[in-house]
Parts: sequence; C-alpha cells; structure tokens
Amino acid sequence: MKDTVSKPALEARLQAIGAARYHNLHPFHHRLHGGQCTPDEVRAWVINRYYYQSRIPMKDAAFLSRCEDPDMRRAWRSRIEDHDGGIDEGGGIRRWLKLAEAVGLDPDYVASGVGILPATRFAVDAYVHYVREKPLLQAVASSLTELFAPKIHAERIEGLFKHYDFANQSSMSYFQKRLTEAPRDVEYGLSWVLAHADTAEKEDAVCAALIFKTEVLWAQLDALWSAYVEPGRIPPGGWQPGEGLA
Amino acid sequence: MKDTVSKPALEARLQAIGAARYHNLHPFHHRLHGGQCTPDEVRAWVINRYYYQSRIPMKDAAFLSRCEDPDMRRAWRSRIEDHDGGIDEGGGIRRWLKLAEAVGLDPDYVASGVGILPATRFAVDAYVHYVREKPLLQAVASSLTELFAPKIHAERIEGLFKHYDFANQSSMSYFQKRLTEAPRDVEYGLSWVLAHADTAEKEDAVCAALIFKTEVLWAQLDALWSAYVEPGRIPPGGWQPGEGLA
Repeated sequence: MKDTVSKPALEARLQAIGAARYHNLHPFHHRLHGGQCTPDEVRAWVINRYYYQSRIPMKDAAFLSRCEDPDMRRAWRSRIEDHDGGIDEGGGIRRWLKLAEAVGLDPDYVASGVGILPATRFAVDAYVHYVREKPLLQAVASSLTELFAPKIHAERIEGLFKHYDFANQSSMSYFQKRLTEAPRDVEYGLSWVLAHADTAEKEDAVCAALIFKTEVLWAQLDALWSAYVEPGRIPPGGWQPGEGLA
Repeated sequence: MKDTVSKPALEARLQAIGAARYHNLHPFHHRLHGGQCTPDEVRAWVINRYYYQSRIPMKDAAFLSRCEDPDMRRAWRSRIEDHDGGIDEGGGIRRWLKLAEAVGLDPDYVASGVGILPATRFAVDAYVHYVREKPLLQAVASSLTELFAPKIHAERIEGLFKHYDFANQSSMSYFQKRLTEAPRDVEYGLSWVLAHADTAEKEDAVCAALIFKTEVLWAQLDALWSAYVEPGRIPPGGWQPGEGLA
C-alpha cells in the first residue's frame, strides 16, 4: 500500500457528495431516529436492510475475485470476516438478526429473504454488479460511503435507545461494532483511492462511484417509505405486517 | 423450433401471475390512462420509461450472446431490429423520442439519460443482468410479460387520445407498432417455454422468471409515483420539472 496521499480538492468533493446525498438526509431516517416509526415500519426496515447486510460479503468477495494484489486482498478480506464472522459466533449478519428478534420478528423468516421489496433487491444487486463489473478504482470508491457511516450509526444508536423499547446492548450490537469497523475500512479505501485517482478523469470516476453508492442507499429508503409509510402501497410480494413474527 | 405444445396448467399459472401482478394494475397507470396525470407527471414517465426502452435491445443482445441455436437467434433478432430500427429511420427507440417531443421534452435530453431515477436504472439493469446470467429458460420466460402487453397498449392508446392534447398518430406510433410486434414475439417465446419446461422444477422457474419481470415493471411505477406524485420526494439527481424542455 502506498503512503498516505493528501488530495484536499478531491476529498472536499467526496465530502460534498456525502453532505448533499447521504441517506442520513432521507425522511425515513429522520422518522426512525426521531421515534416516529410504528413497530411495523421498524420491522419493514429491519427486513429490507437485512438484504443489504446479506449482500455485503458477496460484494466484497466479488471484489477479492478481481483483485490481483495479495496485499490488498489481505487488507480487504476483513470486511467479509466482519459481516460473516466465524461458524459458531457469526458476525454482523447474525448481529443484525439479533435486532430482528428484538423487534419481534422470526430471525429465520428475515434470513429467508421472503417479503423483501423488489426495489430493495434491485438496488442492492446493482451494488454487487457494480463491484463485479466496474474498474477497480470505482469498485473501491463505491465503498466510501463509510466516510459518513459512523455519524449515522451514532445518531441511530442514540435515537433508538431514546425512543424504542427494543433497543438494548444485544439488539444494538451491530451498530456498536460498526463504529470501530467502518473507520478502519474507510481509512484504507480512501487512502487507496487518493493514491490511484491520478488524473482528472479518474477523479471524476471516483466521484461518480460515490454518487452511485449514495443512490443505492437512498433508493432503499424511498422504497421503504413508498411501501410502508404511504398507506396502501405495498407492492405485490412485499412483506405484509403480521407476517414473519416470532 | 418445436411444434406448439399445449400445457394448460402452466399457461393458467402464467395468466394468473399477470392477473395479480402486471403493472396495468398500478395506480400510476390508472392515473395516466384516466387523464389525471399533470404534464410533468407525463414527462417524468416518458423520461424514465425511455431508460427501459433503451435497454431492451441490450437485453436481447445479451440473450443472443448466450444462445447457441442459430434458428432461435434468427427468430429472436427481430426484437433488436424492432427497437433499434435502421440507421436512417430508427425503430421503437426513435418512436419513443417522438412521444418525448410531443410532451414538450427535448429528445436529446431524454436520450442523454440525465435525470433518470436511480430506482428506474436499478430495476431495468436488474432485467438486463437477469437475462445475461440466468438459465436460458428463465431468460426467455422473463419476456412473457408481453402476454399482457397488447391489452395495456390498447388501453393506453385509448386513454391518451381521449385525455391529452399531445396524443396523435406520430406520438402514439410506438404503442401502435407494439400492438402487432408483441403478439408475434410472445407467440414464439411462449411456445418455446412450454416446450422446454418439461419438469415441475422448470415450470416453477418459469413462473419465478415471470414474477421477477412483473416486479421490474411495477418497481418503475412505484419509483415514479414516489418521486413525482407524492410532493417533495424527488431523490437527489432525479429530473426536476422544468429541466430538459424543448
């Protein structure tokens, strides 16, 4: 890995993308963190966001499958380990299922993927395909929403503890863990991107990748809002409140 | 191509999927065909649906690229020809841009793809990836929403002529053409699917493929409704009314 490269102009562009487009700005998150979500809205969020969690290790495996540098693979592999964990204790995915249990859902139902909104699958699968198909620089850059993640995780932990009975050390452990995992990952990814975006064209490609990723996150919340906050708009096949309870 | 195979039970399952899930049931289409859409809602539909049109020949090229049977490639190729047309006259894509002009949009803006909703891209790209990656039987079966298309095209032609000044022979020519193109395509696709779905497992896979495709279509209308019928919900980067006018 190269030494840290400072590129204030590109870093400022990345920060500006986050300030304008990161999903902490979406009204669903205001509603969730402010305690206005109904139990079924929280459940819908947990069910759909599970699909995102479940695809992150597959996305990172797609990345490893294209990465010819063993040093980079060694550094990147921890992302899979964080989410999948070991056979016995599991990782982030199993921590997410603790949250599912805490909000009254059957974790086996959530893990089955039944009831996930098609729009959630399309957005998340677009991310997996992006990392599988785009130039490596863009594949790395698309992970840089982690720059903005610790802030939203901290807001979420605070908001959920304040407003919802289901919040406890066990159910919040996914977010607690991400507070330390995400900064480590993004330090590596950002440093690599800054070192390799050595033309104006590549800098533009990096920004486009980060915008793409913010769209993947935003579209998931739009779909949730449309299906579960607006009345009567659950698409065919989407989870119906009452299904999948523990 | 094999002789026509009759499989009433499988055909009935396919028809039932259409009756429950085809996007003629979506409230956006009721609104469009009933004359309740504002000019900007119509424009948003034309802009976003253009992305679907633009990807159909790429989807069919992905299909050809995987199809080892020259007879099948010869039959399937007309789908690309219908949409792309010849260098001078263009095909369905250029007919769609006539509609764009008729509703007051700059066709070059529409063709640029700027302003297309991320959720539209995710859904449509999911269809292209599906045809590129799934077993050939499912790739063919995913085209069978054409079974239900002539009815919606006829409803649309009638509804748009009745309610909107922009409807004329030129702007409606895309839909008029599809009235004859779609039945020819679906006759071939359905016959092929019925002949090749020779186990219960394959019949289930065919139904899953058709359900997937109905989800691709439905999700596009959910995204349109969320962004342009609900007030104040256009996602970052989405077309803003006033942009791209002729």
